[in-house]
Amino acid sequence: MTQRKPTLHDVAKLAEVSIATVSNVLNDKNNELSDKTKEKVLTAIEKLNYAPNQFARGLKTGQSNIVAFIVPDQNPFFTEVLTSLNDACQQHNLQVAVASSEENEQRQNELIDIFLAQNVSAIIVAPVTSQLAIKEEWKKIPILTLDREVANSKLPCISVNNEEAAYKATERLINQGCKRIGLLLANSDIGTTPRRRNGYELALNDNNLELDENIIFYSNLSQGTEAQVQSGYHATLKLLQEKVPAILATNHLLLLGALQACKEMNKAIREDVIIIGFDDSYWNEIFTPRLSVISQPAKEIGEVAGEMIHDLIKGERVKSTKLATQLIIRDSCSFL
Amino acid sequence: MTQRKPTLHDVAKLAEVSIATVSNVLNDKNNELSDKTKEKVLTAIEKLNYAPNQFARGLKTGQSNIVAFIVPDQNPFFTEVLTSLNDACQQHNLQVAVASSEENEQRQNELIDIFLAQNVSAIIVAPVTSQLAIKEEWKKIPILTLDREVANSKLPCISVNNEEAAYKATERLINQGCKRIGLLLANSDIGTTPRRRNGYELALNDNNLELDENIIFYSNLSQGTEAQVQSGYHATLKLLQEKVPAILATNHLLLLGALQACKEMNKAIREDVIIIGFDDSYWNEIFTPRLSVISQPAKEIGEVAGEMIHDLIKGERVKSTKLATQLIIRDSCSFL
Repeated sequence: MTQRKPTLHDVAKLAEVSIATVSNVLNDKNNELSDKTKEKVLTAIEKLNYAPNQFARGLKTGQSNIVAFIVPDQNPFFTEVLTSLNDACQQHNLQVAVASSEENEQRQNELIDIFLAQNVSAIIVAPVTSQLAIKEEWKKIPILTLDREVANSKLPCISVNNEEAAYKATERLINQGCKRIGLLLANSDIGTTPRRRNGYELALNDNNLELDENIIFYSNLSQGTEAQVQSGYHATLKLLQEKVPAILATNHLLLLGALQACKEMNKAIREDVIIIGFDDSYWNEIFTPRLSVISQPAKEIGEVAGEMIHDLIKGERVKSTKLATQLIIRDSCSFL
Repeated sequence: MTQRKPTLHDVAKLAEVSIATVSNVLNDKNNELSDKTKEKVLTAIEKLNYAPNQFARGLKTGQSNIVAFIVPDQNPFFTEVLTSLNDACQQHNLQVAVASSEENEQRQNELIDIFLAQNVSAIIVAPVTSQLAIKEEWKKIPILTLDREVANSKLPCISVNNEEAAYKATERLINQGCKRIGLLLANSDIGTTPRRRNGYELALNDNNLELDENIIFYSNLSQGTEAQVQSGYHATLKLLQEKVPAILATNHLLLLGALQACKEMNKAIREDVIIIGFDDSYWNEIFTPRLSVISQPAKEIGEVAGEMIHDLIKGERVKSTKLATQLIIRDSCSFL
């Protein structure tokens, strides 16, 4: 006999009805159901000793067992997070619904309002800016922030240690003899941006190097995916003109822009300019030279977020969590 | 004065309440609303001459104005489709919720059941196999298939002309003097797979070349993203051993696997093996040599899908649509 807890799916299978029908019975929702169908479902529930779980409870309380996940852009980092978040939520019979704010704050807030009107059970958001103003009605349901912290807020957050990440990468470039390191940052309003800058500054400081504002670039346009790539591209063109020997690109999209600029200017990565990016992907291994990056534990972030949101829905308290990143050194900055 | 149709958002702004509150008023849902609030919302609706649209109608009929989008894996193609689908749906006050089946048919069917239980307004699905068995209760709401057709089904579909795409790419490789062309295909159950194979076969046939089953590889494992990359990788290792001079990789993930194999075996793309992939991305431009691909109009697919699903929700009939692809020739297969 199987030891695992019976699921809604098991009930549906035994009763030979759909999951939708089981949930309708649990929810006492659909009067069109025949007594015979109801009987079959209730018998199956009894036989399996099925405990109406979060899914059923959610329906009974008028909630939807849907967790809304609001991502800011098409960065593959969020696609990776989504996959493991999906798996973790499924363990608790929660479904994840994703929508993208495309780094537009107004759109983000509209999405929260709309999901709220849809009675989602909880919201996970990677906030467009660190100044998320929490509306009173948002307090009805749990909100977890992901990847990006919100300033002066009590919202729990799952993120990585961004200072440490940028520190490690900068230190590595300094150890390799680079005294000037160009820094590509996302929009300054995003919670991770000042933290990554802090780590960079601290590493320079610890190594008695001076900060040069002229080689630090922010992505001013915050209009989603394309704008970030463009921003990394234009900043890198300038850095190459200035013969800056190393670049730290603090997200995947900025890295794409930097690589595009190097390609166009016929600059060899490693020989002409050393680059460390953020976020690992298949392409980093395939590219020549293979690319060094700060790897964020996207899979783990999704898993932890799933557990945190489940705890929040159950009414439990959760603590904000910061996971460690890993510096993966490949050819793009190996010692020659 | 602005000419555009007033939206729910405009009403919320004028009434100085949230979108959720407006929808609650329209829906007559929340008895906790004060008469004053209701009055404010109704006045704003009158002033703006706001016509309660799909969103409001949806709420009134117990539907959720959410369109569920079930993708099969983390292929960036679907992320791109999602972005424009989001935009198109927003025009009609529909929200898109995404979930991934990870190429698992049981999971896909569970997702459809669950979204149905959540009263989504419609479902867009890229079916795991071409043998999607439509359950009776699924017929309650519109279902649109995307990217992949379902055999013997009346479900409308938005897809590309896959025969033509594979034909164009194969013909181009033949014109370049390649008489043996390795073919990397996804799982044979997926609707697009036989069509892409057909195009390849037809091009060989039209050029009096014989078909060699030994250089055609299917991705047997259908367990999502990682399995496809692995499949492309192992197939390419074999093709390189056999000194096959050209490879057509019929999706982005298979292409990644092929590139990984070339890298490991120190094979130069173009000099040692000519490659054409599927799906355009930033990396194709940045890679050395720049990669040639069949570009699918992901943005347009999302836009058209948004219009089709809106029409379906309104109860209108829609016709299946096939969009054309584009063969983008870059260095990876330019004439030497």
